[in-house]
Amino acid sequence: MQTLKVDLGERSYPIYIGEGLLDQAGLLAPHIAGRKVAVISNATVAPLYLDRLTQTLGAYSVVPVVLPDGEAFKNWETLQTIFDAMLTARLDRRVTVIALGGGVIGDMAGFAAACYQRGVDFIQVPTTLLSQVDSSVGGKTGINHPLGKNMVGAFYQPQAVVIDTTTLATLPPRELSAGLAEVIKYGFICDEPFLGWLEDNVDALRALDQAALTLAIARSCEAKARVVGADERESGVRATLNLGHTFGHAIETHMGYGVWLHGEAVGAGTVMALEMSMRLGWITQAERDRGIRLLQRAGLPVVPPAEMTPTDFLEHMAIDKKVLDGSLRLVLLRSIGEAVITADYPHDVLQATLEADYRAIVAGLEA
Amino acid sequence: MQTLKVDLGERSYPIYIGEGLLDQAGLLAPHIAGRKVAVISNATVAPLYLDRLTQTLGAYSVVPVVLPDGEAFKNWETLQTIFDAMLTARLDRRVTVIALGGGVIGDMAGFAAACYQRGVDFIQVPTTLLSQVDSSVGGKTGINHPLGKNMVGAFYQPQAVVIDTTTLATLPPRELSAGLAEVIKYGFICDEPFLGWLEDNVDALRALDQAALTLAIARSCEAKARVVGADERESGVRATLNLGHTFGHAIETHMGYGVWLHGEAVGAGTVMALEMSMRLGWITQAERDRGIRLLQRAGLPVVPPAEMTPTDFLEHMAIDKKVLDGSLRLVLLRSIGEAVITADYPHDVLQATLEADYRAIVAGLEA
Repeated sequence: MQTLKVDLGERSYPIYIGEGLLDQAGLLAPHIAGRKVAVISNATVAPLYLDRLTQTLGAYSVVPVVLPDGEAFKNWETLQTIFDAMLTARLDRRVTVIALGGGVIGDMAGFAAACYQRGVDFIQVPTTLLSQVDSSVGGKTGINHPLGKNMVGAFYQPQAVVIDTTTLATLPPRELSAGLAEVIKYGFICDEPFLGWLEDNVDALRALDQAALTLAIARSCEAKARVVGADERESGVRATLNLGHTFGHAIETHMGYGVWLHGEAVGAGTVMALEMSMRLGWITQAERDRGIRLLQRAGLPVVPPAEMTPTDFLEHMAIDKKVLDGSLRLVLLRSIGEAVITADYPHDVLQATLEADYRAIVAGLEA
Repeated sequence: MQTLKVDLGERSYPIYIGEGLLDQAGLLAPHIAGRKVAVISNATVAPLYLDRLTQTLGAYSVVPVVLPDGEAFKNWETLQTIFDAMLTARLDRRVTVIALGGGVIGDMAGFAAACYQRGVDFIQVPTTLLSQVDSSVGGKTGINHPLGKNMVGAFYQPQAVVIDTTTLATLPPRELSAGLAEVIKYGFICDEPFLGWLEDNVDALRALDQAALTLAIARSCEAKARVVGADERESGVRATLNLGHTFGHAIETHMGYGVWLHGEAVGAGTVMALEMSMRLGWITQAERDRGIRLLQRAGLPVVPPAEMTPTDFLEHMAIDKKVLDGSLRLVLLRSIGEAVITADYPHDVLQATLEADYRAIVAGLEA
């Protein structure tokens, strides 16, 4: 088992990573203050792991809340069912909320914990690669709004994150690839040597090699914990974690939540960020192509949806949280391994990036 | 103008109290970071003060959001209309939310600010006595749930609180009395000399004497700021501010939100807390009667609803946020001017308090 620490002063917390952690009661106990826990899961994950976790939590009174699965349900109505269940069970302020599932469950359970009686403890038990390397670390919680993704939420830190790598055995390959989009992102924004390691190990990761997975997850969480520790509320450097996300959110919003997986949208969005960084002269064409190849080998889409026009992108991006007083800030690569967030670029370069023929670029790679 | 400070480290903020502050642009400007503000108000207050505040905010782009008036609308559906308006206006993270209205507006606008894009700045401009002396200070925000009052919310501090005492001129007398319930409460829990002052000035306050109002509001805010500064998240002493509220919330929930005003329920709830403190031998019958008389002179109900049985009370109180792992903690008076929160009392004293004949007690006073 590896243990990392997210350093946020009095809100610091550990991340445990290893095989079979779901069965280790001693790991959870120090992080549960009361006698009751609410385990929030979904209809896909609960049949696989809820009984096991409930058994591990034998010393506590467990209230299970099983939600429908999918980003389409990351909304107020579903959140309300959590509050309904917790209030009906008369859970008080000393309850600990445990999120058992992927990013959607973690975001909603975390937001429910942040809001329930103005805030109760919570623990993340992420079961997808995406949530293990991204959403479970850093305290971002929330729900979607018809007018934008994650528009309602809170910064709220868990007591602990428990990552059992064996849960990835039940993850559909498409979701494993989506998680790899975020793993690869850390290489681009702050860890160039990790990119080299990923080029050597991407096939092992897709084949669920446990040692490779443990290393990749730990290295990703380390990168994220470092950035979050430096900038909890995303006033500066933390925003670089959103490489590919501004373009990606536009794709998700336009296509409708859940049509493209988040990681898939980030994959194509990252290609667009690479393209724009190249057009600004910050990275070379060879570096762009290296990035696209790795994303492609991870099983990710590297071309935005054919039906989306530049206008579609601009419209959806204008409401992105990275817009400050009207100027669109983008996360771009100053070099491979060094991301910046900037609104200081010629608009025509953004326009050209949105108009670029990604199909042709990718076809060129394959030639 | 009086200026107080709520001392919460990096989340400290000032409270300004005085006549005509609504017109002073220089007071607001240092607390607004961006160029845009969303003013959240309701259909009663907006016609009275929204234009004036908008004029004062002439240097900013103002998005007004006018909600229906009343505790019955303090729910998710109304909150959603705030998010809809803010997202439609494409307000970004640098927006400042201004709450213009009473406690319901402050609680909802504050919670909206806490959740909008995971948290934006906000300023309280309370226009009712209740919100001026209570809900605008301390950072409690939230909405009601069908299963309980304020069950969903956040601790979220404003940038500043601006209290214009002249706004009380348009407040219905019944709401002025409801506000006095909280003013009187500070005397009971931590400021016995203030009780004496209130006995001398309660008629002046009801007649809207501006000097008396300014003093009473400042002294109340001072008391609250002191308590909140010592215990922001209500782990201990802050809970004493809820004198009369556990009984009061039961009344509000049972009668349906909005039938009794919050302050009215607190008035009757405080009488019950006085009664129980007397039955525990902590205060004398004369002290209980002194308290009831003052609450009565303030125009408050001092008898719980005839239709509520002891069982009704116990049922509603069991889900109160002050229940920790099953034992019901109550705020009681160890002496006049000294409140305690305790679960250490014989249950039969609580039962007797719920069964007491308050009509007879009050009739005895009048005899």
